[in-house]
Amino acid sequence: MRTVRLSIMGFGAVGQGVARAILQKKDYLSTMDIEPIVVGISDRGGACVEAGGVDLEAAIERKQKTGSVAASDLTALDVIKDIDHDIMVDATPTNIEDGEPGYTYMLEAFRHGRHVVTSNKGPLALKYSMLCDEADKNGVKFRFEATVGGAMPILNLAQDALAGNSVMSIEGILNGTCNYILSRMTEEGLSYKHVLGEAQELGIAETDPSYDVEGIDTACKLVILANSIFGMDVTYDDVDITGITKITPESLSLAGAEGMVIKLIGEVRDGNDGIIRVAPKLVPKNHPLAVGGTLNVALLRTDMAGPICVKGKGAGSIETASAILSDIIAICKNRC
Amino acid sequence: MRTVRLSIMGFGAVGQGVARAILQKKDYLSTMDIEPIVVGISDRGGACVEAGGVDLEAAIERKQKTGSVAASDLTALDVIKDIDHDIMVDATPTNIEDGEPGYTYMLEAFRHGRHVVTSNKGPLALKYSMLCDEADKNGVKFRFEATVGGAMPILNLAQDALAGNSVMSIEGILNGTCNYILSRMTEEGLSYKHVLGEAQELGIAETDPSYDVEGIDTACKLVILANSIFGMDVTYDDVDITGITKITPESLSLAGAEGMVIKLIGEVRDGNDGIIRVAPKLVPKNHPLAVGGTLNVALLRTDMAGPICVKGKGAGSIETASAILSDIIAICKNRC
Repeated sequence: MRTVRLSIMGFGAVGQGVARAILQKKDYLSTMDIEPIVVGISDRGGACVEAGGVDLEAAIERKQKTGSVAASDLTALDVIKDIDHDIMVDATPTNIEDGEPGYTYMLEAFRHGRHVVTSNKGPLALKYSMLCDEADKNGVKFRFEATVGGAMPILNLAQDALAGNSVMSIEGILNGTCNYILSRMTEEGLSYKHVLGEAQELGIAETDPSYDVEGIDTACKLVILANSIFGMDVTYDDVDITGITKITPESLSLAGAEGMVIKLIGEVRDGNDGIIRVAPKLVPKNHPLAVGGTLNVALLRTDMAGPICVKGKGAGSIETASAILSDIIAICKNRC
Repeated sequence: MRTVRLSIMGFGAVGQGVARAILQKKDYLSTMDIEPIVVGISDRGGACVEAGGVDLEAAIERKQKTGSVAASDLTALDVIKDIDHDIMVDATPTNIEDGEPGYTYMLEAFRHGRHVVTSNKGPLALKYSMLCDEADKNGVKFRFEATVGGAMPILNLAQDALAGNSVMSIEGILNGTCNYILSRMTEEGLSYKHVLGEAQELGIAETDPSYDVEGIDTACKLVILANSIFGMDVTYDDVDITGITKITPESLSLAGAEGMVIKLIGEVRDGNDGIIRVAPKLVPKNHPLAVGGTLNVALLRTDMAGPICVKGKGAGSIETASAILSDIIAICKNRC
């Protein structure tokens, strides 16, 4: 059995999901010879540390009762720098202004010889190449399946399952909130404002929904796809972005009369006619991209395997944790 | 650069596809530090061998001109046993009676310390556990993405991209020929016999179509999924099989009136209510499994990631070669 020592930075829905997944998957992981031990967890309130392994159930309970996992005077950076471990799981929230605090956490983790697995899009959308360079320089792995498509595997699909293929383009619905809003508007003929309110009540949209509905979230994901799968060197500023706030029930109904739906499509294409764009697009009702509800979908055009379509849940605590866990396993299998 | 020595057993559409993919992907593979060298190729007529690397273009040309790749007195087994190499690519045709010659080739390859990558379903549908045991005993890898779903990644998706998840069930359309026939019958109201003839003319169905239309091909694929993803220990005889030969245009039209289509669905479910079955099933028209043409599709229900759906081309020379190449890369990355 190989012990893998982890830290978890950020202990909101995703961080707690990772802790739950580790508890739940103990036996499964032991069949793969992996014994995960979480040696430190941090959130805004502080950190808790235990070289022999943090009691994850107690940590979740403490977080839920007191609002913080803190049980020491240490900070997140203390944990990253001073507590010996193999993989830093960054589950801090996405910040599209400067990528902090995730960016600094990742750099410090790399510099201290720790692999990084993250669900945080901000640092990757802003400073992808800097992060990859630092990981390379320190001979550690950097994986981020959870940043795009939640539980829907897309990075690992393109890079591992479809290894050998060149991906020529990716089109997809990468934001479940927008897809929910457009799908409901289409089905019920309701206004954007009405359905947004409904989505906020259901917890599908945030109180400030701009990150989703303005296309920012989709744009961040496109940058990650463009850099990691297409080997581009782009940042958030390079994306041509239009959100869904101006879509009217009338336009949806006109589209419907022509056998079409309107979807917020993210699109990356390589080469001379290269594009990286988020915009509402007309999609035929029977097209692979015409999926409803909060689903995410991606259509990859490849040179040998042809078109490959994958769809799944784009968000959720345990779904995102699932993507993080698959990255942890990939690192462990490669003898971390 | 790491040289990887390969043999290719069987030089029909798939074997030649592998040779073409290796030629075409030389630069791509060198970016991954992989230099593939094919040291031997065999077909029914004999073998050609070159320790420094067979000239693949000449081998394809010879095959097409003379009907065989043969350029020596060696047999396939001579190549497997006596020519030093790392990975044996088995592209021999599926034989559901006794799995030969693939079964013997694989066993001998394992015994001589060679990894095996195969597109041949027969040996896996009949003697999966024996093959895995022999690979384990000899400390070599055994990969077979190309046996299920052609270019559509499903084994590597479930085992790598979704690592950490338990897969509870898989349902899918795993045979493009049946899907083509049922889709055309539905769209045009034509008889089974008529569309079968059309598919044979187009090369979508074989002259003897029974392997596809009786559900045998789908059953073999289910056995492979059941054993490799669910850890079952089943063979072809354990599958409950009904083909599509008795489907009438009337039944399709009745289904259509209820918003349904009929599809040949393969289904594996684990646990107490476990099933492994191939049968025509009613599927709602807007269901993820209701894909048309020759497409393959699979719906995986997982414990953490939820339902994941993948679709792609189920057959074709270069598509199958793509799956084989992804397995070769996976073995190389793991330091073969």
